Amino acid sequence: VDDERTPRQSWRDSAGTRVTVATVVRQVDLATTGTFAVEGAIAGVKDHLDIFGVIVIACVTAFGGGMVRDVLIGDVPPAAVRDRLYIPLAVVAGFVVFLLYKPVENIPTWLFNGLDAVGLSLFAVAGSQKSLDFGLNDVSSAFLGVLTAVGGGTIAAVLLGAVPAVLRVDIYAVAALLGGVIVVAGSRLGWRRGPTMLAGALCCFALRALSLWQHWNLPHH
Amino acid sequence: VDDERTPRQSWRDSAGTRVTVATVVRQVDLATTGTFAVEGAIAGVKDHLDIFGVIVIACVTAFGGGMVRDVLIGDVPPAAVRDRLYIPLAVVAGFVVFLLYKPVENIPTWLFNGLDAVGLSLFAVAGSQKSLDFGLNDVSSAFLGVLTAVGGGTIAAVLLGAVPAVLRVDIYAVAALLGGVIVVAGSRLGWRRGPTMLAGALCCFALRALSLWQHWNLPHH
Amino acid sequence: VDDERTPRQSWRDSAGTRVTVATVVRQVDLATTGTFAVEGAIAGVKDHLDIFGVIVIACVTAFGGGMVRDVLIGDVPPAAVRDRLYIPLAVVAGFVVFLLYKPVENIPTWLFNGLDAVGLSLFAVAGSQKSLDFGLNDVSSAFLGVLTAVGGGTIAAVLLGAVPAVLRVDIYAVAALLGGVIVVAGSRLGWRRGPTMLAGALCCFALRALSLWQHWNLPHH
Repeated sequence: VDDERTPRQSWRDSAGTRVTVATVVRQVDLATTGTFAVEGAIAGVKDHLDIFGVIVIACVTAFGGGMVRDVLIGDVPPAAVRDRLYIPLAVVAGFVVFLLYKPVENIPTWLFNGLDAVGLSLFAVAGSQKSLDFGLNDVSSAFLGVLTAVGGGTIAAVLLGAVPAVLRVDIYAVAALLGGVIVVAGSRLGWRRGPTMLAGALCCFALRALSLWQHWNLPHH
Repeated sequence: VDDERTPRQSWRDSAGTRVTVATVVRQVDLATTGTFAVEGAIAGVKDHLDIFGVIVIACVTAFGGGMVRDVLIGDVPPAAVRDRLYIPLAVVAGFVVFLLYKPVENIPTWLFNGLDAVGLSLFAVAGSQKSLDFGLNDVSSAFLGVLTAVGGGTIAAVLLGAVPAVLRVDIYAVAALLGGVIVVAGSRLGWRRGPTMLAGALCCFALRALSLWQHWNLPHH
Repeated sequence: VDDERTPRQSWRDSAGTRVTVATVVRQVDLATTGTFAVEGAIAGVKDHLDIFGVIVIACVTAFGGGMVRDVLIGDVPPAAVRDRLYIPLAVVAGFVVFLLYKPVENIPTWLFNGLDAVGLSLFAVAGSQKSLDFGLNDVSSAFLGVLTAVGGGTIAAVLLGAVPAVLRVDIYAVAALLGGVIVVAGSRLGWRRGPTMLAGALCCFALRALSLWQHWNLPHH
C-alpha cells in the first residue's frame, strides 16, 4: 500500500486515483500511530515504567490495532513494519513523552481522553476503508474498523494488567463502530473517500466526546 | 474455503468431493462459533459488562481460536471475516443472551460447562481437519486443533482478567488433543471425514464430561 | 525456509549458500525453542500447574515470539508448525522438566535468568536475520528481533497473570535490541552471517548478564 516494494497491494478507486487513496489511508494511519504512541507513552509514564518500557507501551498502543488488521486482511508484512516511518515515529513519541515527564504527569483527564478519542476515530475509519479496499464485505469492514481502533489499547491494557477500555468504558467500541459504518455506507453510496472518512471520524469523535461529557451509559445488568 | 470469492483455498479429498468437505468444516465452524458466542456472552453478563462489552466478549470467544488457526495455516482473510455469517451470528447470540439476563444468570454450572465442552469438541476436530486440508503435518494439525479449541476462551479470559481454563482446568486441552489426534489418525487410516470428525468430537466431549463428573485430575506438584 | 515443501520461502545470501543460511537460522531457532521451553516449563512448575498446563506454558514461551515474527514477515505457516521438530521438542522439554520437579524447584535464580538470557540472545539475532532475509528494512528487522525475543515470554506472563519481563526488567528488551542492531549492521557492512549472529548473541547476552550482575537500571520516574 505504502511501499514501492509491494505493488501487489496497491489498488484503484472508482475514479482510478490509486496514489491518492493509498496516501490518504497511510496519512490517517500515521497520524493515528503518533496519537496512540503519545497516549500509550503517557499511560506508561503514569505507571512508572522505565524509558524502554514506556517506548514498548507506546509501540504496542500505536501498532497493535493496525498490525492485527493488516494480518487479518492479508496485507503482510503489515504497514507498521514495511513502511519506514511508523516505528521511528512511535519511538520518538515515546521518548519525547518520557522526557517531558512533569507536564505529562499533569495532563488533565479530559485531554488524555480527547487524545484517545482522536486516535479511536482516525483508526476506525482508516481500518474500515483499508478493509473495504482489500475486498472484505461490509460487515467485516466495519468490524475490522472497530478492531483496528481498539486493538492497540486493548493489548497495552492487558500488558499493564488493566481492564481494557473496550470492556470498561460504555460508549467506546460503539463510537468506533459508528465511524466504520459511515465509511462502509459512504462506499456503497458512492461518496468520495476523503470526505466520507472525515465525516466518519467526526461522527465517531463527536459520539465519544458527547458520551464522556454527558456520562452516557449503555444498558447493563 | 467457504466463500466463492476465494477459489484458491478450496481442496478435494481422496474421493474428489470438494464441496462436501468445505461445507462440513464450515458448518462445524459455524456451530462452534454460535456455541462459543453464547458461552462468552453468558460469561460477560455474569461479569456485569454492558451490552456492547457482552457482544465483544461473545465475538472474542467465538472468533479467537478460528482466527488464530486461519492466520497460522495461511487461510487469510480468516473465515470469520471472509464469510458473511460468522459476525452476525456472534453479535445476535450476544444480543439475545444479554436480553435473556434472568434465565442466563440462573444457568447451572453443569449446563455452562456442557456448552463449553460442545464448543471445545467441535473446534478441536474442525481445527485439526482444516489444518490437515491445508497440508500441515500430523503433529501440527493436532496441535492446531487444540489451539483452535482453546484460543477464543483463552483470549476472553485474559481480557476479563481471569485465569484461562487451559491452565486452570485439569482435563481440558487434553480432551481437545484427543479429538485432534482421532481426526489425524482417521485421515492417515483413510477413514471417511464426516464420521471421523463425529467420532473425534464425541470422544473429546465424553472425556471432558467424564472428567467433570468424576473430578478427574492430571498430576501436578 | 526449513521445509522442503515450501520452496517459495527459501533464499540465497550474497555468496549463494542457500542451505547453510536456512540451516543456521533454523538451528538457532530450534536451540532457542528448547531453551525457552525449559524456561517456560520451570515457570509453570513453580506456579503449580498440572502436567498439561506446564506443557502449554512451555509451548507458548517457546513458540510465541517466533510465530508472531513469522506471521508478520509473511512466512506462513510459521516454522513452529511447518517444521516437524519444534512441537515435539517443546513438549518433551515440558514433560522432562515436570518429571524433574525437585531439582527444578531448587534451580537458583541466576541459573533461571541465565537460561532466559541465552534464549533472549539467540532469538534476537535469529529474528533479525530472518526478517532481513525476508526483505524487511533495517529498523523493522531490529524491531522484529526484539519482538521475537520477548514475544513468547510476554504471552506466557500474560496467561499466568504476571507482569511481562519486558515491562518489569530494566535491561531486557534493550539487550535484545543490541543483538538485533549488530545483526543489521553486520548485514549492511557485508560481514559473514554466522560470525555476525554469534557476535550479536554474545553482545546481547553480555549486556543482559552484566545488568543482572551489576543491577543496572534504566532511568524511570
